Amino acid sequence: MGKNFGGFKGILIIGLGLIGGSLALSLKREGYQGKIYGFDLNENRVKIAKEMEAIDEGFTSFDDIPWKDIDLVILATPVKTFLDIAKKIKPYLKEGTIISDVGSVKGDLVRQLEEIFKPFKFIGAHPIAGTEKEGVENAVIGLFKNKKLILTIDEEDEDTKRLEELWSDLGAKVEVMNPDLHDFVFASVSHLPHAVAFALVDSLITLSKETGIDLFLYPGAGFKDFTRIAASSPVIWKDIFLQNKKDVLHTIDEFINSMKKLREYIEKEDEEKLLKLLEESREKRLSLG
Amino acid sequence: MGKNFGGFKGILIIGLGLIGGSLALSLKREGYQGKIYGFDLNENRVKIAKEMEAIDEGFTSFDDIPWKDIDLVILATPVKTFLDIAKKIKPYLKEGTIISDVGSVKGDLVRQLEEIFKPFKFIGAHPIAGTEKEGVENAVIGLFKNKKLILTIDEEDEDTKRLEELWSDLGAKVEVMNPDLHDFVFASVSHLPHAVAFALVDSLITLSKETGIDLFLYPGAGFKDFTRIAASSPVIWKDIFLQNKKDVLHTIDEFINSMKKLREYIEKEDEEKLLKLLEESREKRLSLG
Repeated sequence: MGKNFGGFKGILIIGLGLIGGSLALSLKREGYQGKIYGFDLNENRVKIAKEMEAIDEGFTSFDDIPWKDIDLVILATPVKTFLDIAKKIKPYLKEGTIISDVGSVKGDLVRQLEEIFKPFKFIGAHPIAGTEKEGVENAVIGLFKNKKLILTIDEEDEDTKRLEELWSDLGAKVEVMNPDLHDFVFASVSHLPHAVAFALVDSLITLSKETGIDLFLYPGAGFKDFTRIAASSPVIWKDIFLQNKKDVLHTIDEFINSMKKLREYIEKEDEEKLLKLLEESREKRLSLG
Repeated sequence: MGKNFGGFKGILIIGLGLIGGSLALSLKREGYQGKIYGFDLNENRVKIAKEMEAIDEGFTSFDDIPWKDIDLVILATPVKTFLDIAKKIKPYLKEGTIISDVGSVKGDLVRQLEEIFKPFKFIGAHPIAGTEKEGVENAVIGLFKNKKLILTIDEEDEDTKRLEELWSDLGAKVEVMNPDLHDFVFASVSHLPHAVAFALVDSLITLSKETGIDLFLYPGAGFKDFTRIAASSPVIWKDIFLQNKKDVLHTIDEFINSMKKLREYIEKEDEEKLLKLLEESREKRLSLG
């Protein structure tokens, strides 16, 4: 059975970064038959995307886009730009166009975007995929294959099913979750680990300064893997931390509690409790494979 | 030029775990011409080591070992067993035998072992290599290749140079560092990251219980890499944390400070300071490759 990718005829991807670029490239290489249009303020990225044949046509101005040929718009710029872009593009949209995104923070933003885009349909989406690299030049074919994609909606309908088909045809495993729950879950499993990785490197910088020894000359086993995500984009992560502030602070507090608990067991040399904490964490971690 | 492996004729490896097993197997496969003897209280490990041809002869009792043929003993059991083993094996040692180890915590222990073994020479060594797996059955040929190996000594002499040659011939990059500095450095780059990984998983267990959502169903990008070291042996890490208590607590405190600083910037929405912390951490992490 052929793939139908939700039956969209023309897809506009706004923002040719790693995710937007990988989406375009994956659609092209996995048999999407419609047209792919790319927009980015950065002329060079548009050029690269065309050279890579990730997009059919590229634009740096909304005025130049053939809006009548577009029935799906995907926002793939940093999340903080979404509201501004929404207001700018709404006047251009043709009837029935669906708008979606690939942003990692939802909550209030999804509600706001749903409101702004009315009568057009906005459907929040979050592919759980990425690398610490940036830009269309690092785009990966099949980036979304076997990865979860969360549709942040309250209930499914015809439109959400079309979008679901598009992502399923790219190999993603689609799940539905309400936007608020989504933000808490990703504060826990993604935003917190990033905060921890950045803070860990920060503490080693401080310890190096304190002692005059460049600790970064001695990356122990696991240290590089462990801190790889601290190489992620500072601008993107600053925005994510601030946009998901409430949930991020909640998970940081819980983590600091765990860290203090561990510290206490070590200080008191409470072998039993220390071992129990390590064993439970290990068991849970092993269950992830 | 042939490899001489320090000119040792018979090497006894006490403890056939991942590191001891990998050392035996690597010596065998990289051209060591002397004999390799293996000791482990676990009969099954001795059997596996022989089947893998990692050792020439295996023992579960010190009485059975042909001590006259052994001029190098390597302690590769958990660090906490070292003092006990040292006392047990000292009466068997033949004149001129050198004793070393592959343990990750030094400090006072090296001084104690040097004292106990006198007139025999004890030379502390710490290969910066490993995986989160355990046991000789997971031994890796070439585990030490291009990895740092720290000799924790105050100064070099003929004996330390022989040991240095053995490790260099296995491809390790040998460095000399005094035992106290060694412990601080590895508290920072290895023990702290492990503590953080265990605590991170622990906090997600707590958050899952609090909310009734199994957060481990949603391992985001990077999460698995980030927490892989939390799958390390709880028993080994409990011991390491306690043996290196002073330095581990010091680095945990510094890390909690960094975490609180990051938390404060997010809470106050101080974009400038937040971005600066993320940028500095990223830059430092990128420098590690």
